[in-house]
Amino acid sequence: MAKIGFIGLGQMGSGMCRNLIKGGHQLKVYDCAEAAVQNMVDAGAEAATSARAAAEGAEVVFTMLPIGDIVYQTVFGPDGIAEGISNDAIYVDMSTILPEETRNIGRKLAEQGVAMVDAPVGRTSAHAVAGTSTFMVGGDKEHVQRVMPYLECMGECITHCGPLGTGATVKLVNNYISAVCNLVTAEGMALGLAAGADQDTMVEVISQTPAGLGHIKTTWPAKALADDPSPAFMLDLARKDLGLALTAAADAKVPLATGSVTREIYNIASAAGHGREDWTTGIYRTVKHLANAT
Amino acid sequence: MAKIGFIGLGQMGSGMCRNLIKGGHQLKVYDCAEAAVQNMVDAGAEAATSARAAAEGAEVVFTMLPIGDIVYQTVFGPDGIAEGISNDAIYVDMSTILPEETRNIGRKLAEQGVAMVDAPVGRTSAHAVAGTSTFMVGGDKEHVQRVMPYLECMGECITHCGPLGTGATVKLVNNYISAVCNLVTAEGMALGLAAGADQDTMVEVISQTPAGLGHIKTTWPAKALADDPSPAFMLDLARKDLGLALTAAADAKVPLATGSVTREIYNIASAAGHGREDWTTGIYRTVKHLANAT
Amino acid sequence: MAKIGFIGLGQMGSGMCRNLIKGGHQLKVYDCAEAAVQNMVDAGAEAATSARAAAEGAEVVFTMLPIGDIVYQTVFGPDGIAEGISNDAIYVDMSTILPEETRNIGRKLAEQGVAMVDAPVGRTSAHAVAGTSTFMVGGDKEHVQRVMPYLECMGECITHCGPLGTGATVKLVNNYISAVCNLVTAEGMALGLAAGADQDTMVEVISQTPAGLGHIKTTWPAKALADDPSPAFMLDLARKDLGLALTAAADAKVPLATGSVTREIYNIASAAGHGREDWTTGIYRTVKHLANAT
Amino acid sequence: MAKIGFIGLGQMGSGMCRNLIKGGHQLKVYDCAEAAVQNMVDAGAEAATSARAAAEGAEVVFTMLPIGDIVYQTVFGPDGIAEGISNDAIYVDMSTILPEETRNIGRKLAEQGVAMVDAPVGRTSAHAVAGTSTFMVGGDKEHVQRVMPYLECMGECITHCGPLGTGATVKLVNNYISAVCNLVTAEGMALGLAAGADQDTMVEVISQTPAGLGHIKTTWPAKALADDPSPAFMLDLARKDLGLALTAAADAKVPLATGSVTREIYNIASAAGHGREDWTTGIYRTVKHLANAT
Ligand SMILES: NC(=O)c1ccc[n+]([C@@H]2O[C@H](COP(=O)([O-])OP(=O)(O)OC[C@H]3O[C@@H](n4cnc5c(N)ncnc54)[C@H](O)[C@@H]3O)[C@@H](O)[C@H]2O)c1
Ligand SMILES: NC(=O)c1ccc[n+]([C@@H]2O[C@H](COP(=O)([O-])OP(=O)(O)OC[C@H]3O[C@@H](n4cnc5c(N)ncnc54)[C@H](O)[C@@H]3O)[C@@H](O)[C@H]2O)c1
Ligand SMILES: NC(=O)c1ccc[n+]([C@@H]2O[C@H](COP(=O)([O-])OP(=O)(O)OC[C@H]3O[C@@H](n4cnc5c(N)ncnc54)[C@H](O)[C@@H]3O)[C@@H](O)[C@H]2O)c1
Ligand SMILES: NC(=O)c1ccc[n+]([C@@H]2O[C@H](COP(=O)([O-])OP(=O)(O)OC[C@H]3O[C@@H](n4cnc5c(N)ncnc54)[C@H](O)[C@@H]3O)[C@@H](O)[C@H]2O)c1
Repeated sequence: MAKIGFIGLGQMGSGMCRNLIKGGHQLKVYDCAEAAVQNMVDAGAEAATSARAAAEGAEVVFTMLPIGDIVYQTVFGPDGIAEGISNDAIYVDMSTILPEETRNIGRKLAEQGVAMVDAPVGRTSAHAVAGTSTFMVGGDKEHVQRVMPYLECMGECITHCGPLGTGATVKLVNNYISAVCNLVTAEGMALGLAAGADQDTMVEVISQTPAGLGHIKTTWPAKALADDPSPAFMLDLARKDLGLALTAAADAKVPLATGSVTREIYNIASAAGHGREDWTTGIYRTVKHLANAT
Repeated sequence: MAKIGFIGLGQMGSGMCRNLIKGGHQLKVYDCAEAAVQNMVDAGAEAATSARAAAEGAEVVFTMLPIGDIVYQTVFGPDGIAEGISNDAIYVDMSTILPEETRNIGRKLAEQGVAMVDAPVGRTSAHAVAGTSTFMVGGDKEHVQRVMPYLECMGECITHCGPLGTGATVKLVNNYISAVCNLVTAEGMALGLAAGADQDTMVEVISQTPAGLGHIKTTWPAKALADDPSPAFMLDLARKDLGLALTAAADAKVPLATGSVTREIYNIASAAGHGREDWTTGIYRTVKHLANAT
Repeated sequence: MAKIGFIGLGQMGSGMCRNLIKGGHQLKVYDCAEAAVQNMVDAGAEAATSARAAAEGAEVVFTMLPIGDIVYQTVFGPDGIAEGISNDAIYVDMSTILPEETRNIGRKLAEQGVAMVDAPVGRTSAHAVAGTSTFMVGGDKEHVQRVMPYLECMGECITHCGPLGTGATVKLVNNYISAVCNLVTAEGMALGLAAGADQDTMVEVISQTPAGLGHIKTTWPAKALADDPSPAFMLDLARKDLGLALTAAADAKVPLATGSVTREIYNIASAAGHGREDWTTGIYRTVKHLANAT
Repeated sequence: MAKIGFIGLGQMGSGMCRNLIKGGHQLKVYDCAEAAVQNMVDAGAEAATSARAAAEGAEVVFTMLPIGDIVYQTVFGPDGIAEGISNDAIYVDMSTILPEETRNIGRKLAEQGVAMVDAPVGRTSAHAVAGTSTFMVGGDKEHVQRVMPYLECMGECITHCGPLGTGATVKLVNNYISAVCNLVTAEGMALGLAAGADQDTMVEVISQTPAGLGHIKTTWPAKALADDPSPAFMLDLARKDLGLALTAAADAKVPLATGSVTREIYNIASAAGHGREDWTTGIYRTVKHLANAT
């Protein structure tokens, strides 16, 4: 049973806190909203009057706050965590913030000898309540192992992604892809509806292809992930189909924002000589090249 | 056993043709490339010297050609299908062309009393060879039923989508979504790589979320497809995460083309009052509204 | 005084036709809309019953039609120009169509020994009426010179751009840039309004900078057009400002579609090493490189 | 002759400082780079050892620093301006930062009774050296008038845009439009080059149209700025031309990133009923509506 400080008791934090209490831990909690603190006291936590107070005496200190600036202030501002936390405690931020903000906080904490782990959270607040959140975790192996039991109280599918900040990075990568896929699904469906197709039929068809099943477990393993350019489906054919979809959409006055720029990137790929390669490998190579990433 | 005319014996057409022959049918084939015709003759087909000749006496005539203009010319040009096809035959185009081009051809054929079905093809040429293509089919129910046995020789997962042209529409919708999802996957992975994350770790994480599993069978059924705005995940939170990803990408000089415009559409959605709705429902409503689609 | 065939008597064609008549020429005109023909007859033209008839006996034949397919049909369809035009006449298409469509028609006419010039039109229908249209002209020098007097009846600012199709190309380039600049002006102004700025003030400020005066005569001559990378204004500073504008716009929920993708191209430029170059030279180099254009 | 504090002596600040000295003012300067301070001392300024010290005793305090976070720290951090500035002095920030960051600093300074003006700078560092910078100024009329003489030492074309933060807003609007227009110019030219047109010819043509002259003083005054929808050039015609340019570019594999999304916004405009309106008015109305801006 550990002594835990927890700051940020909103949609996410309140549920996570309850699951730590359920796990038998001793919670000292702080939030600038008094009602939020009172709720947790009712659930069995001890109230703290500042982030510093919540951190004092704790083996691990969690934050679940809105944005990077607030996390920074909560750590280094007056009456902040940095003033209260002990040198053998670990600080874990679970908020969704920039990897650079995470690393910046970690660097400053390291100067005073305090270790940090970032553990941003996947899924929704309902999952936080149910204790089935997912975590993408960044930090030294040793520190990650020490906080693992607490993360397991709050969730499942916990992935150690690498050094401090990579949790935040992988979280952003994941949510980035999801947010775009959500829109392109809507665009495609709207195009179909505008052109007289039926929603149920589209769902049925899409459900059986990478359009509905995603690429990472279907087309990518044998090609893009293996860097194999031999085409299962040629990039230039996908480029042709994109062009047709954009023309059909212009006729129907349906805006295909993501597809419009996608076609231009396929143009870039084709101009760079990837037109006859597999569409996944050719596109992955192109984007990595444009980004200087390897 | 039917008499079948088949025009267009390329990557796709040659494999499909063989599967019809295997199915016991009598094929008369034409392609402007003589070698392509000869190959099919070796496989048991009869050579025709024109599209018209291939169409004469056939119960059903298939085309599998590159683009809409060529399909049009092959039907209505000199020595075209329209000159040879009999009134009780059905013409089936399987090329990927615009729905409007399909309907235009269908209208003109109807004037001379000939029925048309569009049956564009999913998957790849390897599937065409294996006889496991998918078909998205448009046309009158009666005509679709008559050509169904032949499509079944060439593939599986055959979906009747509605009237003539809806096969082409659903095909474009599907490939549109796939082509964008392919790029956004590459963008996300490149961002992760540039920011120090590991490819395998990202694949592992993404494989368990809508980023890797798609939306249509995960987040959409209970929300967007049911038009339920109550948030599992709030649109404005996804908008925040997009903003963070774009900022991280600008720092790392990674181009996120699709995500950049996606954020602007999320802005439009939020300005229109959908910010606190579920991200799938709010985005679907927004795009449908912008497109006047229902 | 020349004998001229003119086909396509709409918004643009009717005004241009009158200016040719005013110039003393003898017009034989055709349009599929009878009322359009009658109007020109009232203005002094002779009616023709087909494109072929309008072309017969003419020294030069003009078309001003909606789209490329219609131009093609009007030339090569039944009773088309190709059947009536004499070998020493010149055919001039002034419609806005694809360069490739123009060249395709030119190639086929050349086979029967007929010369073609493309002369798409700038400005608006009011200018066509006033005889102040602009022309971007493509074709052999000799042919262009022969049709020059007629173009001068209809307009001013006539630029010979190069071989057949380059008129169409330069027209598209010009209208492309204008159409985007129109939108980005609206986006910028909307951002300002949403953030509390005043329209008149913005107009005043913008009117004195490349935002309002364009780049081609201000920042580009000394830098991008001279391929001089020494920075008057550094690309990475412009990239920074774009990022601020996008963040401010996200806060205000103003959609900046063009700027969002622009930032990604600036990211590509910076990743490719152009970040400390002049923003015009660095961007021009980047886009030319991506396009394999020189 | 006034006592002036000046912090941030880089590319821009150093030139501006010299011009204030030339104007006869007494400068106390600070920069975290000692060499930068020494340079100004050589030019006649007095060195300060902190931002606070530079602010002490000054009638007006200027900052010209890289980004918002640094400006904030320089004002409110330890040994910051806020500790040294007197209540009847005015603080002027000239850095390019977010309007929201500006207003946030202004609010906090107001609490201690200090007035603020924002005066971000147009043009380049060469102009800062020459004393011909432009300023977009936000703040109370009285405060702006008091700092006007100093701004006039450093530049020309000084526009008071409204309350605090509107200087920053108008600056971002201006640079936003410029940065996109720069890219679209490059895209258009690259398309032309790839399609065989000549750079000089394109420059000649573009220099006479809104593509090269901008919209705000050409097409916009009679239409968009007057909210007059009667078409000089119809939005749907511009939309058609955009479509042609995108198709030509796809054939030539030239990426037209800005134009691709522009077409989608024109689609939205047309779907909303603006297709037959003037292209400037219809687009401005559309974007304002999407942004809830008026
Ligand atoms: N809600 C979700 O579905 C979800 C899912 C995954 C990740 N996230 C991320 O988790 C984080 C938290 O989200 P949330 O939905 O719980 O937000 P929330 O707004 O519900 O909760 C934030 C809490 O922080 C408190 N707080 C704010 N400033 C504070 C300060 N200076 N000191 C002390 N307390 C302060 C607030 O009072 C509030 O109780 C965000 O970064 C979000 O992006 C949310
Ligand atoms: N290849 C794929 O993976 C794939 C997958 C799904 C759909 N498609 C679509 O299927 C269609 C055919 O694709 P493909 O890969 O078989 O193309 P392909 O280029 O391999 O084959 C086209 C065939 O048509 C012939 N042809 C062209 N013009 C002709 C004319 N005027 N008269 C007679 N024959 C003519 C060519 O000689 C060639 O044999 C395209 O629309 C494509 O978009 C392809
Ligand atoms: N209107 C403008 O401001 C403007 C400016 C520059 C360029 N353009 C371009 O000029 C071209 C013509 O534009 P417009 O505004 O005059 O169009 P319009 O629709 O007013 O006129 C087209 C004319 O062509 C006729 N026509 C159509 N099909 C025909 C056929 N098969 N045979 C004979 N006649 C036929 C129509 O009856 C009509 O009179 C277009 O390519 C357009 O993009 C227009
Ligand atoms: N350079 C241009 O052409 C240009 C044009 C218009 C606007 N601007 C804007 O003007 C601002 C300044 O640009 P610049 O080109 O002069 O940048 P710069 O990097 O050349 O100068 C910034 C100066 O600030 C100093 N500085 C940084 N942090 C400091 C701190 N904490 N305390 C004290 N001094 C500190 C640096 O040492 C440096 O001398 C930026 O916001 C930029 O976007 C620049």
